[in-house]
Amino acid sequence: MRILLINPNISQSVSDLIDTEAKLTASAETQIQTVTAPFGVAYIETRFEAMIGAYAAAQLAGDHAGEYDALVVAAFGDPGMEGLKEVLPCPVVGLTQAALASACLLGNKISIVAISRRIKAWYAETVASYGLTERLVSIRSLEEPLPNIGSVQQDKAASLLTAANLCVSDDGADVIILAGAPLAGLARSLAGQLPVPVVDGVSSAVRHAETLVRLNAGQTRTGSFAPPPLKPNAGLPQSIATLLANGHQRL
Amino acid sequence: MRILLINPNISQSVSDLIDTEAKLTASAETQIQTVTAPFGVAYIETRFEAMIGAYAAAQLAGDHAGEYDALVVAAFGDPGMEGLKEVLPCPVVGLTQAALASACLLGNKISIVAISRRIKAWYAETVASYGLTERLVSIRSLEEPLPNIGSVQQDKAASLLTAANLCVSDDGADVIILAGAPLAGLARSLAGQLPVPVVDGVSSAVRHAETLVRLNAGQTRTGSFAPPPLKPNAGLPQSIATLLANGHQRL
Amino acid sequence: MRILLINPNISQSVSDLIDTEAKLTASAETQIQTVTAPFGVAYIETRFEAMIGAYAAAQLAGDHAGEYDALVVAAFGDPGMEGLKEVLPCPVVGLTQAALASACLLGNKISIVAISRRIKAWYAETVASYGLTERLVSIRSLEEPLPNIGSVQQDKAASLLTAANLCVSDDGADVIILAGAPLAGLARSLAGQLPVPVVDGVSSAVRHAETLVRLNAGQTRTGSFAPPPLKPNAGLPQSIATLLANGHQRL
Amino acid sequence: MRILLINPNISQSVSDLIDTEAKLTASAETQIQTVTAPFGVAYIETRFEAMIGAYAAAQLAGDHAGEYDALVVAAFGDPGMEGLKEVLPCPVVGLTQAALASACLLGNKISIVAISRRIKAWYAETVASYGLTERLVSIRSLEEPLPNIGSVQQDKAASLLTAANLCVSDDGADVIILAGAPLAGLARSLAGQLPVPVVDGVSSAVRHAETLVRLNAGQTRTGSFAPPPLKPNAGLPQSIATLLANGHQRL
Amino acid sequence: MRILLINPNISQSVSDLIDTEAKLTASAETQIQTVTAPFGVAYIETRFEAMIGAYAAAQLAGDHAGEYDALVVAAFGDPGMEGLKEVLPCPVVGLTQAALASACLLGNKISIVAISRRIKAWYAETVASYGLTERLVSIRSLEEPLPNIGSVQQDKAASLLTAANLCVSDDGADVIILAGAPLAGLARSLAGQLPVPVVDGVSSAVRHAETLVRLNAGQTRTGSFAPPPLKPNAGLPQSIATLLANGHQRL
Amino acid sequence: MRILLINPNISQSVSDLIDTEAKLTASAETQIQTVTAPFGVAYIETRFEAMIGAYAAAQLAGDHAGEYDALVVAAFGDPGMEGLKEVLPCPVVGLTQAALASACLLGNKISIVAISRRIKAWYAETVASYGLTERLVSIRSLEEPLPNIGSVQQDKAASLLTAANLCVSDDGADVIILAGAPLAGLARSLAGQLPVPVVDGVSSAVRHAETLVRLNAGQTRTGSFAPPPLKPNAGLPQSIATLLANGHQRL
Repeated sequence: MRILLINPNISQSVSDLIDTEAKLTASAETQIQTVTAPFGVAYIETRFEAMIGAYAAAQLAGDHAGEYDALVVAAFGDPGMEGLKEVLPCPVVGLTQAALASACLLGNKISIVAISRRIKAWYAETVASYGLTERLVSIRSLEEPLPNIGSVQQDKAASLLTAANLCVSDDGADVIILAGAPLAGLARSLAGQLPVPVVDGVSSAVRHAETLVRLNAGQTRTGSFAPPPLKPNAGLPQSIATLLANGHQRL
Repeated sequence: MRILLINPNISQSVSDLIDTEAKLTASAETQIQTVTAPFGVAYIETRFEAMIGAYAAAQLAGDHAGEYDALVVAAFGDPGMEGLKEVLPCPVVGLTQAALASACLLGNKISIVAISRRIKAWYAETVASYGLTERLVSIRSLEEPLPNIGSVQQDKAASLLTAANLCVSDDGADVIILAGAPLAGLARSLAGQLPVPVVDGVSSAVRHAETLVRLNAGQTRTGSFAPPPLKPNAGLPQSIATLLANGHQRL
Repeated sequence: MRILLINPNISQSVSDLIDTEAKLTASAETQIQTVTAPFGVAYIETRFEAMIGAYAAAQLAGDHAGEYDALVVAAFGDPGMEGLKEVLPCPVVGLTQAALASACLLGNKISIVAISRRIKAWYAETVASYGLTERLVSIRSLEEPLPNIGSVQQDKAASLLTAANLCVSDDGADVIILAGAPLAGLARSLAGQLPVPVVDGVSSAVRHAETLVRLNAGQTRTGSFAPPPLKPNAGLPQSIATLLANGHQRL
Repeated sequence: MRILLINPNISQSVSDLIDTEAKLTASAETQIQTVTAPFGVAYIETRFEAMIGAYAAAQLAGDHAGEYDALVVAAFGDPGMEGLKEVLPCPVVGLTQAALASACLLGNKISIVAISRRIKAWYAETVASYGLTERLVSIRSLEEPLPNIGSVQQDKAASLLTAANLCVSDDGADVIILAGAPLAGLARSLAGQLPVPVVDGVSSAVRHAETLVRLNAGQTRTGSFAPPPLKPNAGLPQSIATLLANGHQRL
Repeated sequence: MRILLINPNISQSVSDLIDTEAKLTASAETQIQTVTAPFGVAYIETRFEAMIGAYAAAQLAGDHAGEYDALVVAAFGDPGMEGLKEVLPCPVVGLTQAALASACLLGNKISIVAISRRIKAWYAETVASYGLTERLVSIRSLEEPLPNIGSVQQDKAASLLTAANLCVSDDGADVIILAGAPLAGLARSLAGQLPVPVVDGVSSAVRHAETLVRLNAGQTRTGSFAPPPLKPNAGLPQSIATLLANGHQRL
Repeated sequence: MRILLINPNISQSVSDLIDTEAKLTASAETQIQTVTAPFGVAYIETRFEAMIGAYAAAQLAGDHAGEYDALVVAAFGDPGMEGLKEVLPCPVVGLTQAALASACLLGNKISIVAISRRIKAWYAETVASYGLTERLVSIRSLEEPLPNIGSVQQDKAASLLTAANLCVSDDGADVIILAGAPLAGLARSLAGQLPVPVVDGVSSAVRHAETLVRLNAGQTRTGSFAPPPLKPNAGLPQSIATLLANGHQRL
């Protein structure tokens, strides 16, 4: 089984974190490939940046068409994930969606610990779009600027742990999600240091992608995740035109 | 006052409908400019197509930076609108958002009449993202293929009227929104033929954009619609890089 | 275009604030008339007082029947507004409804700054009745008694600004509504002093009333805002009996 | 214990139905008094009519101040009930509120059978204002005009029974509320003819009013149901001025 | 009228509190019988303990089949109450359900004061299962261990009063529920010491049970509270087998 | 890895279906053990039956304590699952919870196809308890009696397929859950016959249980899923007393 993880941002250091955690988690028979956006921003905190990341994710998905059995959009907020589900013939998973699925299986009330204050509104909107606001008791975040996105786990370890503990003691969380691809693997380090389960997005996404491939639940031929209906298009990058054309063939 | 209307699709015929309705509605002192996406699809029905339209809208917004006092994303589903609010120093309005604002002022329960069955899920998600699901009693749509997107108002007049009447009689709608830029101006033609008020997205958006400019409520300097925080970017089209750079200057 | 603004309270000083702000905002061709309730309380903070204000608003609407193209119920909480929509053949707008429409166009999360602690429950119920609780992040208020309702803007300027800033910093508001007709015009004074847009109810109501008249969306002949069905009545004030009779004629 | 039932409409025939059912239900030691609005409409179907009924209910409550240990607003939709809770020192119960309390104790999913199509929107808004929309599975109604409001139970018996059965078979109701004071006592007649419990508003209100008096849970001195804060008023009917003055004395 | 109150826990001291309050509240013609679980835990704070209590409640209901006209599950969280409604031919009321019904009749926003921090999640889930989360503004609790469950009212009087006052001043509660059978009767002692009404679960349950018997609303023969469909069972305690068999006879 | 699947009903034929599907799905290194309730009913359709099943599941979990690394409550409605999460030191998964997690990863709007009309209310309440009502568009079911619970897949194949197709065409489902342990494995047979993905509860539960063991997210030491606080108990079956005692040791 081949899983492609797309980092929709330009930070190679974050792609490396993603790739490492994915390979630690994946089953022996799974091949992991991690790719980095050729254009975009260092990391996504806002709706405008997510819009850019979604477009980059789509181009990478098209560039690598045929090379994967499942796709992971390896950023929280899941930029482009829902659109890609329409055009691709295989499972597509985003980090937020995957982490929420794990968290929902582990407890009732969920908190998210995030890497910046600004990112909180966008995460809250993502959770709401999945209909899970009722499960979310808080989003807490780092408050200081991030000098180096690739080493935020190390640089801010104490602040992240403090935030997670407050989610439990003050907000009533049953489970903590450590959110943001730059935190990939941190749950593994924190194991046993928190009084409730801690969920990692990358490892959740890889495991759930494997599960969906195994369940082999069937493709979408009608309904809201079917390929977009046939219609004229123009001026699109080859990668995106290919995704549309492949989708049209499945109709 | 200058309002730029962006058609995030490639259909010039739809841009013409938008432009005509906008000019009929605008105050005498308002200048209307309507532009068409240089790349994309004929019309947006799905999340993947909306993702493309959002990126096209952003590029047009950047290409015309400085030429407008308010921006209208002239497609239902409002592709890219929320992201553009972050980077632009002026009001940004989408057709769905604008039509819903009008409808909320006219009655309690709202129905949407749309141009295709496939488009309904995406519209429902848009309404949900604005927290207005409780106000929405139904989305009804045409069921047949659309041979010519520019003349759907004429080609499908009877079906659209039937759908609107069912929204009132069967679903309990107090107000009808005719959704889809290809229906721009239809509310004007149907005036008096329906037993409840009928709302047009383009004219609502133009009027509300004028209102927001006049109210002069102040710019966003902090919070979730402030410009994206300063961070590295790479490989972006000039238009989008400009929007980010302009935003950073306002921080 | 003629807009009648009804102050459903007995405070002439508040009517003067309303009238001034309305005239500053209205388009050149709009005529503004502001009238004051002949009976009632100094200002509305509770459900019982709102019930009185609603009845006063209805009497004024009937007394002036035929003199306006749109009606504004110029109190927050919108006493009587929904009932008046049923009997009047023209747009009817309330301050809360209008301010929320503006705020929804300017951001996602909304806070309200109000003039007394007691008023908060009633405002929260009003927002809930419009299905917008999900958009509301907080209602903050002055805590001290109001010696002079007509000069609360000046007397409590610093407290109001503090409350508004806390809505942004602590509650995550994208937009602030300054609520209560006694605050009419304050948004204009505060322009630029807050880091997010600030919305005024009176100016929003006047502009939206103008928009609804222009959109000419059609009257309600069936459904929940149609005129009340014909049935016996007795003992009503002439003004209210007239509104019912006029409504019956439209059936 | 003395319970005053206020019919906020002018129909003496409906007051008679209310009075009969109330006396059949009340405990032996309870005294029932039923009064009829001196002004208003024959029965309430709309928001505007409810606004009139609320004002009439308040006047009757003031006229009879001191004569009752609990007050029942004996119309569905509970016009004026929440405001009266603020000014009165005793329990105040409305028919919808009371019927819902009974229904919530008897099952999960509730349907309402109403006397006219037009009344449905107003009832739905009342249920929503109590936060119970999630419990409500349907409102079904008679569709034909009502020639005689006092004999609707007899005239439309078959249609009402059919509607109630459809609530069970098609909508999944666990309990049926027969709504509208003109249906007072019908649940008693239908006993055993429906496959689920059937709730009457008048008998529920009388019993719950007795319970609240017995529980003697304490008066409201602060919070949203405390008496309205002291402030100037003018031009009010003596009955309403008295309620405000009595409230102020309790502050 | 005979009401059986089931304490689904093993604490006789709590049963005594329940029995005393029930007898103080009940009408003269009502006979009160209180029974204690023969197996289980001292008091219920968690979902697992509630599962045990539900099974004990069912056994007691079966053991005493035929001895009561209404049943009260006399623990907050209402363990087993909904299932018992299916099998019993008479009203079944739980303390939380009953207290909420009283509170909903007394005000809009409700707070719960509970006896331990751990119990809060379970109570919140119970309120949510009744669709009343929107009415609940807070659950506050004692934070210290409870040395003697039968004397918690006396031992923690000051802490309980402080918590209740904070519900009003900080959370905006219109009504307070004192939750937990060990607090039975405390509302009676606190009468007049709190600025809003205070609701007791046991007295509410007894009164509402009497009301339901009097309303005689009819049995459930179809729908979700009808007796379980006939099917094989095996190995059940006689008491539970009897309840199933009695239910089957009513089908 | 050892997974124990508990059938909380007495039907060995259903346990066989569960066991077969579990073994087809599990990873090579996973050991599957399936056990059947020694007491209870043939299959669970109601809240009362679920209460019995929960108690049986708890006894089986205690009887086999120490023999598994993850537990699956192998019935839809997940009887006892949430309570078992409190007392067990390992992941506990229910079929409904697991199927919903899979479905949420595959699409937005979900339908459930169930084996009896009566079961629908209980399933709807289960989905609501997980906060996922917004995702659920319909529950459709077989309407006829089930002569043989072990062969319902074969006996009712056509009806089940029809129901599933209506979920897609009429209700807008993106994904179908085939609900009820008696349908274990049916998704595998229907693969490719439906136009949207189809989810099986048993295979989802086994895969998600494996994932949770692998993620090793950490145990719950505080919060709402921590072991029940230490307190006296009496009269419990040894299996349940053991679970409580084991939990207390982890505090």
